Amino acid sequence: MGNFTATDHRLMARALRLAERGAWTTRPNPMVGCVIAQGGEAVGEGFHQRAGGPHAEVFALRAAGERARGATAYVTLEPCAHYGRTPPCALALVEAGVARVVAAMGDPFPDVDGGGFALLRQAGIDVAVGLMEERARELNRGFLSRIERGRPFVRVKLAASLDGRTAMASGESKWITGPAARADVQRWRARAGAILTGAATVLADDPALTARPEAGEFLPPLRVVLDARLRTLERTGVREGGAPTLYLHDPALAPPALEDIQFAAAPLQADGRFDLHVVMALLAARGINEVHVEAGPTLCGALLAAGLADEVLLYLAPLLMGDGARPLLAGLGIDTMAQALPLEVADLRSVGKDLRLLLRP
Amino acid sequence: MGNFTATDHRLMARALRLAERGAWTTRPNPMVGCVIAQGGEAVGEGFHQRAGGPHAEVFALRAAGERARGATAYVTLEPCAHYGRTPPCALALVEAGVARVVAAMGDPFPDVDGGGFALLRQAGIDVAVGLMEERARELNRGFLSRIERGRPFVRVKLAASLDGRTAMASGESKWITGPAARADVQRWRARAGAILTGAATVLADDPALTARPEAGEFLPPLRVVLDARLRTLERTGVREGGAPTLYLHDPALAPPALEDIQFAAAPLQADGRFDLHVVMALLAARGINEVHVEAGPTLCGALLAAGLADEVLLYLAPLLMGDGARPLLAGLGIDTMAQALPLEVADLRSVGKDLRLLLRP
Repeated sequence: MGNFTATDHRLMARALRLAERGAWTTRPNPMVGCVIAQGGEAVGEGFHQRAGGPHAEVFALRAAGERARGATAYVTLEPCAHYGRTPPCALALVEAGVARVVAAMGDPFPDVDGGGFALLRQAGIDVAVGLMEERARELNRGFLSRIERGRPFVRVKLAASLDGRTAMASGESKWITGPAARADVQRWRARAGAILTGAATVLADDPALTARPEAGEFLPPLRVVLDARLRTLERTGVREGGAPTLYLHDPALAPPALEDIQFAAAPLQADGRFDLHVVMALLAARGINEVHVEAGPTLCGALLAAGLADEVLLYLAPLLMGDGARPLLAGLGIDTMAQALPLEVADLRSVGKDLRLLLRP
Repeated sequence: MGNFTATDHRLMARALRLAERGAWTTRPNPMVGCVIAQGGEAVGEGFHQRAGGPHAEVFALRAAGERARGATAYVTLEPCAHYGRTPPCALALVEAGVARVVAAMGDPFPDVDGGGFALLRQAGIDVAVGLMEERARELNRGFLSRIERGRPFVRVKLAASLDGRTAMASGESKWITGPAARADVQRWRARAGAILTGAATVLADDPALTARPEAGEFLPPLRVVLDARLRTLERTGVREGGAPTLYLHDPALAPPALEDIQFAAAPLQADGRFDLHVVMALLAARGINEVHVEAGPTLCGALLAAGLADEVLLYLAPLLMGDGARPLLAGLGIDTMAQALPLEVADLRSVGKDLRLLLRP
């Protein structure tokens, strides 16, 4: 692990902030930031912007130029050692004459996984690993989940009144939260690889489920509809708006040919529902790091009950809607207090007039 | 209104803080604080501790002694002008030779209501009124509600999971919130004149409903049970613990003779329920400034629906309990989003692992 100085921490913190600037564009790649420093002063910075484009180290080395010689490179993830779409970054650091590399964490991606550090050490570079590792893991929780667990990181977005209601008995639900909360949701959508919903939501709301952040470049997330019987196809909102769409359906059905629309069969359980673990494995296989769920109480409840919700993004509007209104979650199967699902409040803030809680089961 | 200096604000803020020290003990009297100052420096301080005991001004004048001559007195409420259980404070200020009196607000109590200021002005004292009036009114919202509206200020305490559930379908509810939240509730109870509950809660939980703050002197609040048919009398928890108890019941019933227990008839509506406006008027007539409600979804919902809940104190535990669990509120009669009850978030904080929201309809 090595002993890290305050300067090391400061420069790694900077590299982490740089990395996050790629949150909407790097997928399926991880976010990576790099700072090249001489005597504690940054002489080059960079972050990974797009899969297929240069890595963070390349941008930082370009900016540093000759000042990279004898410098320390701070990287939020192990430099790659393989020839992928770009030459290995570890080699670029060696060739630039960098004297020391400080990395927040190793890259578990099978083509890297220690190879980058080995290449650097073989070249006589001082390598220290583990500085601010927790923050670095947090940053790439989606990528790490896909690589290490074989499934995406799953965030379930919910919006309710203070008495836990999401819609009137009639289905009326516009608008529970205010404009600031709705704009905030767009930013969460923009960082997701996929936005997942269920057939019930498509039938009820015909939503577009595109990401529409106020500003900033982003990759349009894949919209994924769990529609076993393919009974929502007449609702076209989710196929419009310039983002890709994938329907998951019963393998017994032959999907229609719809231009630019993807279909994939996913096995159903005996109860006729999807096996959500399988659904997530299929999405991981498509390179999805983070899944953002906007669905009804049944699908959201099923994800929580299956232990697949890594995070719950809950907006609470300062309203009371009464016990005739629809519940936040269904099918949790909780009968005793001992079965109640505890959540950790990772973040709490006001967003406009609403509250936003980021919760981890 | 007058122009107030930064020094005036500082000393009135001090007087308001002093006043609040009487929150658990002054009732049915208002909380009052007083600072006597010479050249911007406090030379005497006091607050009203107990009904029947000396008023804030008396304590402050005693502490100031001869230094009160020519001084400014900061008082959070108009000094009294009548001979009640103590001589008039306005007279005491005159006799001490105070040159200027700055008051946050007038006292709407009929025996005062401008008489204090008139007495001071007649004695040649410079009187300025209205400094930090909003905070002063907030401080004594209970007293002011009773005097000005003829009913207490009503705070409805609720505790729920993040999905708005208060108990399992079985009724099991211990414990949704953590020890810090439960200790916090005790402090809110301690400042209330009455703790109100319904027959359903007494039958289900047999609660004591005493105030048990960790430290500090307080007057035991009156426990009030809305029990039209007097069907909870075998549940004795609410009559134990050293605090007074009042049952409100159908006028058609003759209450039993129970030592130290109070009974009062309150008219029922055609639907067999109490008229909650009448209930509150009866409590105000008994000198209750603040009512703290700990009851089930029906009574809490009815208070909200009747517009009688001035404040909702909502503890949210970081838990999900599912849609089989019991709702926070019943009978709000809300069918459309336009009917949903909006609340203002007056305060939001973490209390232990729980959230606490102070809401105003």
